[in-house]
Amino acid sequence: MKILVVGLGLIGGSICKALKKYTDYTVIGSDLNKETEQTALAEKSIDTVFSGDFSESDLVIICLYPEAAEKYFAENASSMSSGTLVTDVCGIKGSFAERMKKIAADNSMEYIGIHPMAGKEFGGYANSTPDLFVNANFIVAPFEDSSEKNTDLLKKLAQQMEAGKIVVTSPENHDKMIAYTSQLAHIVSSAYVKSPELELECGFSGGSFQDMTRIATMNEVMWTDLFMQNKENLKFELDTLVKNLKKYSDALENSDAETMRELIREGRILKEENLKRRIGQPN
Amino acid sequence: MKILVVGLGLIGGSICKALKKYTDYTVIGSDLNKETEQTALAEKSIDTVFSGDFSESDLVIICLYPEAAEKYFAENASSMSSGTLVTDVCGIKGSFAERMKKIAADNSMEYIGIHPMAGKEFGGYANSTPDLFVNANFIVAPFEDSSEKNTDLLKKLAQQMEAGKIVVTSPENHDKMIAYTSQLAHIVSSAYVKSPELELECGFSGGSFQDMTRIATMNEVMWTDLFMQNKENLKFELDTLVKNLKKYSDALENSDAETMRELIREGRILKEENLKRRIGQPN
Repeated sequence: MKILVVGLGLIGGSICKALKKYTDYTVIGSDLNKETEQTALAEKSIDTVFSGDFSESDLVIICLYPEAAEKYFAENASSMSSGTLVTDVCGIKGSFAERMKKIAADNSMEYIGIHPMAGKEFGGYANSTPDLFVNANFIVAPFEDSSEKNTDLLKKLAQQMEAGKIVVTSPENHDKMIAYTSQLAHIVSSAYVKSPELELECGFSGGSFQDMTRIATMNEVMWTDLFMQNKENLKFELDTLVKNLKKYSDALENSDAETMRELIREGRILKEENLKRRIGQPN
Repeated sequence: MKILVVGLGLIGGSICKALKKYTDYTVIGSDLNKETEQTALAEKSIDTVFSGDFSESDLVIICLYPEAAEKYFAENASSMSSGTLVTDVCGIKGSFAERMKKIAADNSMEYIGIHPMAGKEFGGYANSTPDLFVNANFIVAPFEDSSEKNTDLLKKLAQQMEAGKIVVTSPENHDKMIAYTSQLAHIVSSAYVKSPELELECGFSGGSFQDMTRIATMNEVMWTDLFMQNKENLKFELDTLVKNLKKYSDALENSDAETMRELIREGRILKEENLKRRIGQPN
């Protein structure tokens, strides 16, 4: 199989490296930045730089931000061979995926989205690694009428890159879950660093501060794009969190130790149950 | 020097083990649970079990929850030798430390609090380890009139246990900073697990979900105690966070991508500056 990876950033670069490390597929790389393409070639992360001829590729993996991914696909779909499988790695599916599906169908191709649940707080090809997906959760988000063959091909690809739990779910459910497990976490981290005490925290923090603020370094262009395309789900999660945080604030305001104990106890039990469900699971 | 460690839980047990590993001091251990005392003795985490004679000890480290620590000190201070240095490891200082200071002064002893910024999401002697404090931040919180000799002794102890950055600060500033770096993080983690999506998150999460929820397993008795003794500082931090989170919620509500980008950008820059300040710092 010949695979074209479009966009050699953290995820695209890591996919190239993982494919080269764990499979025998031919990996073709494309990036707006020609230096990145040459670096990837020199490092043997890819077999060749994309020539401009899409007919070479059986599978196209678009590793761009959502808006750019859609634009790229719309502009180039007519140059791709019919029967090509196209996927993307965006952290949003939903109506974005519907539009991608339509572009594919209009050009006799199939589109099915994937979302490897792996990342780093710093992006770019320089941070990419062949083992980014090892033991990570990996979501494949076909439509009701997607072909089983291509869904299985993407699942197999995840397995080959040594992903942990591979979940097949609808684009809608993907967005609902991701709003909670990933997008909300990024907003909390971003808001957490906005205390006047931040400037003085050196020497006063343990692991919990680091855990809370690690991902505040996220790229604002990509994440705004992701958030805006999932705003109903994300707003629900954010408002649920704020509503819950206020209960702790009220307990402090009222010096109500009993309620505070109960609030913490509830959280502890929920997390303990969560940990039990996760036994043997990645992440 | 002979050191009595009262309470052989995660922190007390780890202090015993660190003292045995990194110093030649004699370590005396005391715990309400006699089995824990015997385990610590058998594992050579302590040299002897506390006999009931406080006059053997030059330094008493009380490793109990705040309320219990104060009660223990009040009940036993008159049995301790004058000149004994007494410390505690509680995550709260402020008025608690003032009361501890008074008990010490009334019995011709000195009290200075410490707070090693290390912990785990699960407590108890079974989880204690000699290297818990290695490279961790370590706070010593003397009063304006505390003796330099004893402040230095506690700093030296932290150094010997291989702590990272050792910070000397007032009890009041300790509480203000800890409200932000530790207590707020625990409340966020506890509230984060209260989404209806929690039950279904398996397979949909990456590292950020784990980071956000790791400490939700905290013990409700200890943390309620800590929160209630620091409620003004903590409420300020919590309300600041909620106020900031609402800005992101409003941007979603208004489909205002420009404001969202700016909110994320502000957070990114704050965290990047924070990381620069932390270069070469522990945690």
